Amino acid sequence: MKIGEIAKKLGLSIIGDSDIEISDVATLSSAKSEHISFYHNKKYSADLEKTLASAVVIQKKHLFDNAEFTAVISDNPLDDFRRVVEIFHPVIEQKPGISEFAHIDPQAEIGENVLIEPYAVIEKSTIAIRCRIGASSVIGDNVEIGENTRIFPRVVIYPNTKIGSNVIIHSGAIIGSDGFGYSRTADGVFRKIPQIGRVIIEDNVEIGANTAIDRGALDDTIIGAGTKIDNLVQIGHNVIIGKNCAITGQVGIAGSCKLGDRVLLGGQSGLAGHLILGDDVVVFAQAGVEKSFDDGTVLLGSPARPSRETLRQWAAMAKLPEIIKKMK
Amino acid sequence: MKIGEIAKKLGLSIIGDSDIEISDVATLSSAKSEHISFYHNKKYSADLEKTLASAVVIQKKHLFDNAEFTAVISDNPLDDFRRVVEIFHPVIEQKPGISEFAHIDPQAEIGENVLIEPYAVIEKSTIAIRCRIGASSVIGDNVEIGENTRIFPRVVIYPNTKIGSNVIIHSGAIIGSDGFGYSRTADGVFRKIPQIGRVIIEDNVEIGANTAIDRGALDDTIIGAGTKIDNLVQIGHNVIIGKNCAITGQVGIAGSCKLGDRVLLGGQSGLAGHLILGDDVVVFAQAGVEKSFDDGTVLLGSPARPSRETLRQWAAMAKLPEIIKKMK
Amino acid sequence: MKIGEIAKKLGLSIIGDSDIEISDVATLSSAKSEHISFYHNKKYSADLEKTLASAVVIQKKHLFDNAEFTAVISDNPLDDFRRVVEIFHPVIEQKPGISEFAHIDPQAEIGENVLIEPYAVIEKSTIAIRCRIGASSVIGDNVEIGENTRIFPRVVIYPNTKIGSNVIIHSGAIIGSDGFGYSRTADGVFRKIPQIGRVIIEDNVEIGANTAIDRGALDDTIIGAGTKIDNLVQIGHNVIIGKNCAITGQVGIAGSCKLGDRVLLGGQSGLAGHLILGDDVVVFAQAGVEKSFDDGTVLLGSPARPSRETLRQWAAMAKLPEIIKKMK
Repeated sequence: MKIGEIAKKLGLSIIGDSDIEISDVATLSSAKSEHISFYHNKKYSADLEKTLASAVVIQKKHLFDNAEFTAVISDNPLDDFRRVVEIFHPVIEQKPGISEFAHIDPQAEIGENVLIEPYAVIEKSTIAIRCRIGASSVIGDNVEIGENTRIFPRVVIYPNTKIGSNVIIHSGAIIGSDGFGYSRTADGVFRKIPQIGRVIIEDNVEIGANTAIDRGALDDTIIGAGTKIDNLVQIGHNVIIGKNCAITGQVGIAGSCKLGDRVLLGGQSGLAGHLILGDDVVVFAQAGVEKSFDDGTVLLGSPARPSRETLRQWAAMAKLPEIIKKMK
Repeated sequence: MKIGEIAKKLGLSIIGDSDIEISDVATLSSAKSEHISFYHNKKYSADLEKTLASAVVIQKKHLFDNAEFTAVISDNPLDDFRRVVEIFHPVIEQKPGISEFAHIDPQAEIGENVLIEPYAVIEKSTIAIRCRIGASSVIGDNVEIGENTRIFPRVVIYPNTKIGSNVIIHSGAIIGSDGFGYSRTADGVFRKIPQIGRVIIEDNVEIGANTAIDRGALDDTIIGAGTKIDNLVQIGHNVIIGKNCAITGQVGIAGSCKLGDRVLLGGQSGLAGHLILGDDVVVFAQAGVEKSFDDGTVLLGSPARPSRETLRQWAAMAKLPEIIKKMK
Repeated sequence: MKIGEIAKKLGLSIIGDSDIEISDVATLSSAKSEHISFYHNKKYSADLEKTLASAVVIQKKHLFDNAEFTAVISDNPLDDFRRVVEIFHPVIEQKPGISEFAHIDPQAEIGENVLIEPYAVIEKSTIAIRCRIGASSVIGDNVEIGENTRIFPRVVIYPNTKIGSNVIIHSGAIIGSDGFGYSRTADGVFRKIPQIGRVIIEDNVEIGANTAIDRGALDDTIIGAGTKIDNLVQIGHNVIIGKNCAITGQVGIAGSCKLGDRVLLGGQSGLAGHLILGDDVVVFAQAGVEKSFDDGTVLLGSPARPSRETLRQWAAMAKLPEIIKKMK
């Protein structure tokens, strides 16, 4: 496909030769002359200068003189490159069909054009049209799954969970396990409190491999629409997460936290229980949040504080050994 | 059920109207007039004042004048509320039975009233009476499982593991995987050391979703009776955990640690290898413990120190930027 | 077996009685007189003095006067003890064979002497000779697995993954799940970027229980030969790991990091995205690495700095409360 055609499909303008043939997508560093690539992160400016790609999706302000590639000008290069990837690598839909080796409760309601792979177990639950249930997944009693949701192999959905449409759940994820809820006697013996709430996952959520989301103790655990959750994340009982949040790998959210919309949690960060974070809060990797923060706060460190405060402390700490030496 | 009846069942006294009909349990904030709730955490004092619940299980000292609810007076509101939940939500026992789609070794010994769900694999092992083995779980050779233990779907128990009675293991947990044990040659090549120890899980333990517990290298890894382990916890080879400990989400315990009884480990905290923690040690979330500590120590920070010491350091650090400014 | 025979098999010399009969291996503290043990860690020097073992594999410099055991002299006691363990506990090879209850695509290519356990799903993929595929594992389309690789029960290998020879993958591991890759619109909505790269795992790698390794976005995620990965580790898309690295429990490596050879990452440590670590870098437990470091750097703390620098800061911080008090 010619660069000109690609740009036309995307509705973007180009600077440079529009007639070069492009056969695939690639990163700046691995691209050859038949590839289109993209630039959106300063860490790759050296790669940009040396790239062999014939076309690069790029913001106009990042274009430099004498660039040897054709620039496809974009305000959001990553998003427009996403569309380029979809042109060259269209999703191949699996054929629907229900494996004779799946175990499906006769009272389960299965919509049309559903794919159920071998050794899946579907209890008395409702699976809407165009869903795909991967091999060896277990869908418990009274689960509802919305249209076009894709569950990869070996996922477990505990009973009473409600999952929206266009949700993606990766292998190994456990949805609706019991929360860590116990009372404790005077001599330190724990007694299990029945966990009777549900997990509700709204539309367009994606959940990563081996992530665990606990059911509510009394009320429900809720994952808001459009929120993306990475691998090996732990979400405790009664957590309520807003819409369009991004929760990266190995984050831990203790019970009863409430997050606003568009909250971003960096890898391995942790939230203590019963906290409230406002909309657009950003938590850096490994931060440890132990109190509530308002909309838009950017948090860093453990214990987490607004980043400016933490950076000031870290800068002071770095000077401290020298200062102590001088004081002596 | 009338509040008076509930209180009578629990053996507790009430302050207020005993005749109101209660239909279910709820949290303070979501309760309506037909609900009974509980109060045990200061973070919810505002919810307590505004609750619509007609009854609240509460310590007498937390009761306030003009409360509109009937108080069910308890020394341990969480534990008594647990009993209330059990009244309104009795556990519905699954019917025992062995699925014809499970794969069971002819030499396996299966007790009476056991439930084995589809696609479970049971090798030459011993499963005591009233156990429930979830779908797609794999129970290896020479495993012993005590009475009334519940294994949720998709758990793997490696060979030679010994599990007590009344244990609960949630989906995705892996019990008895090889420890991270290698020798290393002079040029940095790792060679695997056979891991020939076992995992022993005593009675009344609960293990969370996607948690991993490694078998011992030579001796055994042991989880003491009554200990509760949350989701995504990593327990290395030869760790010995005492009784009635609570190990919360994403904790990591490196090999050969030895913990006393009633130890509490906060979320994402980590223990370096070969440490000894005494009875009743408390480790706060994200703390990093790199040496042994005696009974009752409360640990905070990374590296973890007694909390008073860490809090003093943190307070000093917070002042440091201002102090450096003044010194200049 | 007599100690003399064992030493002869290992090609090692002994100091002490060579005629004592040894029946098994044990740790110093649990050994009885019929056992052989080893010593390689100062933390166990008290155990060495009190051990009942009749033989100990030990470096000559650690041998003390009047030791009651026979010393088997070794430059690398852990590695030589590994060989002793293999003598007393030879690996019992499972018999090859393909379960009639496995679901195997007719176009899959399965080599000779392969073991495939019940409820495994093998799509159109290539499994070389002597591989073992555990119960309920799922091997996706177009996967290649080299000779003598062992996949424990309940592993998922996503399509297009390439796995070398003599690899071990423990239960619950997920190889090739989608990376956490999204573009974001101006109003904060995430759009999934197709993840079209692969995971390539080279020879002699071992991967722990419930670990997740994401496929590349465009290029591949690569795990170098001989690298050992522990449980519950998260490896993001496009990460490239060198040879003979050790990555311990719960480590998180964000996308596009590049690690040299023989890198050691301590438990719960984390690497931010797009970093480069040279050969032989050592990262201590819980460290948070947010920039690149050269060959041989030893990193400590969060944010991680060369250990000498961090230790100096920590020492200064410990003194700080006292200094502030004096200044007042």
